[in-house]
Amino acid sequence: MKLICDGLDLSDAVLKVIKAVSNKTTNPILEGILLTAEGDRLTLVSTDTELSIIKSIKADVKIEGETVVPGKFFSEFTKKLTGEQINLTLNTANNQLKIEYSDSEGFIGCLNAAEFPTPKLLSDADYFSLKQADFRALVNKSIFAVSGDDSRPLLKGCLIEINDKEVRAVALDGIRLALVKKPVIKTKVNTGLIVPARSLVEIAKLLNENEEEVKVLIQKNNIMVDLGDIKVITRLLGGGNDFINYRQIIPTEFSSVITINKLHLEDALERVSLLSRVEKNNVVKFEIAEKLLTLKSMSEIGNIKENLSIVLNGKDLIIEFNARLFMDCLRANNDEFVKLSFNNNISPCVVCPEMSEEFLYLVLPVHPR
Amino acid sequence: MKLICDGLDLSDAVLKVIKAVSNKTTNPILEGILLTAEGDRLTLVSTDTELSIIKSIKADVKIEGETVVPGKFFSEFTKKLTGEQINLTLNTANNQLKIEYSDSEGFIGCLNAAEFPTPKLLSDADYFSLKQADFRALVNKSIFAVSGDDSRPLLKGCLIEINDKEVRAVALDGIRLALVKKPVIKTKVNTGLIVPARSLVEIAKLLNENEEEVKVLIQKNNIMVDLGDIKVITRLLGGGNDFINYRQIIPTEFSSVITINKLHLEDALERVSLLSRVEKNNVVKFEIAEKLLTLKSMSEIGNIKENLSIVLNGKDLIIEFNARLFMDCLRANNDEFVKLSFNNNISPCVVCPEMSEEFLYLVLPVHPR
Repeated sequence: MKLICDGLDLSDAVLKVIKAVSNKTTNPILEGILLTAEGDRLTLVSTDTELSIIKSIKADVKIEGETVVPGKFFSEFTKKLTGEQINLTLNTANNQLKIEYSDSEGFIGCLNAAEFPTPKLLSDADYFSLKQADFRALVNKSIFAVSGDDSRPLLKGCLIEINDKEVRAVALDGIRLALVKKPVIKTKVNTGLIVPARSLVEIAKLLNENEEEVKVLIQKNNIMVDLGDIKVITRLLGGGNDFINYRQIIPTEFSSVITINKLHLEDALERVSLLSRVEKNNVVKFEIAEKLLTLKSMSEIGNIKENLSIVLNGKDLIIEFNARLFMDCLRANNDEFVKLSFNNNISPCVVCPEMSEEFLYLVLPVHPR
Repeated sequence: MKLICDGLDLSDAVLKVIKAVSNKTTNPILEGILLTAEGDRLTLVSTDTELSIIKSIKADVKIEGETVVPGKFFSEFTKKLTGEQINLTLNTANNQLKIEYSDSEGFIGCLNAAEFPTPKLLSDADYFSLKQADFRALVNKSIFAVSGDDSRPLLKGCLIEINDKEVRAVALDGIRLALVKKPVIKTKVNTGLIVPARSLVEIAKLLNENEEEVKVLIQKNNIMVDLGDIKVITRLLGGGNDFINYRQIIPTEFSSVITINKLHLEDALERVSLLSRVEKNNVVKFEIAEKLLTLKSMSEIGNIKENLSIVLNGKDLIIEFNARLFMDCLRANNDEFVKLSFNNNISPCVVCPEMSEEFLYLVLPVHPR
């Protein structure tokens, strides 16, 4: 292998694929990045066997070939390069890669490319597509509700449901649920997929905040997100039938519905929760009455009472929430006003935008003491 | 106590004094902030008995008085206030402070002001003054060389020396030394003071990057930095005679002197030290020859060789350094070119700007293996 490439292209590519390089593994090859020089491209591949990232850049390839570089070191090293042109030359006798830049040079010992578990690209027999910005929003507005509980592995993923009209992301952890809906552009499937949260987070980082289309290919137990010169492949945790039937959980009728300025609620919750945090239980009392929501918290240090104007439809109610869980919901939302819907002090509250049905959050109250 | 003040003024003042509030202390009063309403000012005072910060803001005082609020909570709470006007009212019967803002209110339990160890302001019988920006530079360009070793408490401070011409800051930790010089504006003293590094760091944060003068008052074992509505008082660790005689340590004659582009050296050191870091000893070899400095490092992963153009006056030399210690020096320096002066491979290297004598750093080499 012998090639010349642009230093910035290379370091950018390495920073992208490094996300799927294993840190702690018993298999050292997974700590590496596979470099393949072929045609006029250099392709970088990383995998931890669950998530794989493949990125290719332009290169002036003199001799084709492949090798596996130590991932962490290669990424730190390329990040620090300031020169424009990088020469990479593999000495196949000792599998040592020579990196030439400016007036200087480095030599790094590489691993055998034949041992690298190269992920297979998926065919586009089955796929769906949506806007990149919509895919990002699906992830970013639901991911916080994913469970961290190792004993319930399916809940460590998001359910992605695709039908002819929309793509839905659903995450839940036993005390709250987040549901986000975005329009589908094209689909050959009508199905549900449980995608590991970690893979979704890395995918979201690679997506642009724009109208461009992104294609998601599905094959057996894997999906591949195709972004042209970057492809991300991830294993699935299961299919739609393996997930909790979330539709059953969401109430559709309510006895009290309030509309409130989201930022005011967020600021007030932050202040009252300062006191409840001292006691570490994070409990804040919501007193709902006509035109006024009063948030109350108290602890050894003192007590705080916040008054907020609301529009109430329905009955007065006193109900307690874990403030942190409530704030997570609000932070994922950009609307000016939100609608909070309640039944009683032991039933979940549903939070959604005032005007749209794009998001829905459900939070269980704290049981009255 | 009863007053009205501006919310931003208050939260800004709290953020400044909070730096001297103790976090872990057996004396709860030191976790508090003393509030004193008097005349048309509200004064906030914090102290950990070594460092004290005093800040006053404008207030519409209705009833004079004082109390001690829990520092951490009060700072988090005021930081989150969005309203413009804050009403503070002390209920002297139960020592509870009522905080009114917008439509809401909080009550916090306070401590007894009589128990607060209020620091005494210093008189200006003895003082020196310099530019604020110069004081900042004295601290920021020397502080990294302060020792972290608890067994040598005097080295956990900087020596500040004042004479008719200049103010010097000196820090050392046994393997390196930093010396910074700045002009004095006015002085009534000709002395040396050992100031705790932590106090200097907090003082530097309060100083502006401008030409304004700052007065440092000296009395017994304390100094007070007077910035008008903020005053910082710190205990000293000792006087000039208690510090190591640093003048003896700095060599004045050299057998090899090189001039080099500082940024190029810094970048190259960062790259070569990536490999030496793997081995955790951080050793980088400097090979000095006519026109060329070659930096070399090697480890299990591979080896790197960086070539840098230099101007050499004197003999060739091969010498090894801990790369991290060398980079600390370079990062504290803004000059385009630096001068490195050597004698042999076991004597210290002196780093200084090419054109000025404002800074001087001294680093010991790693003993040849």
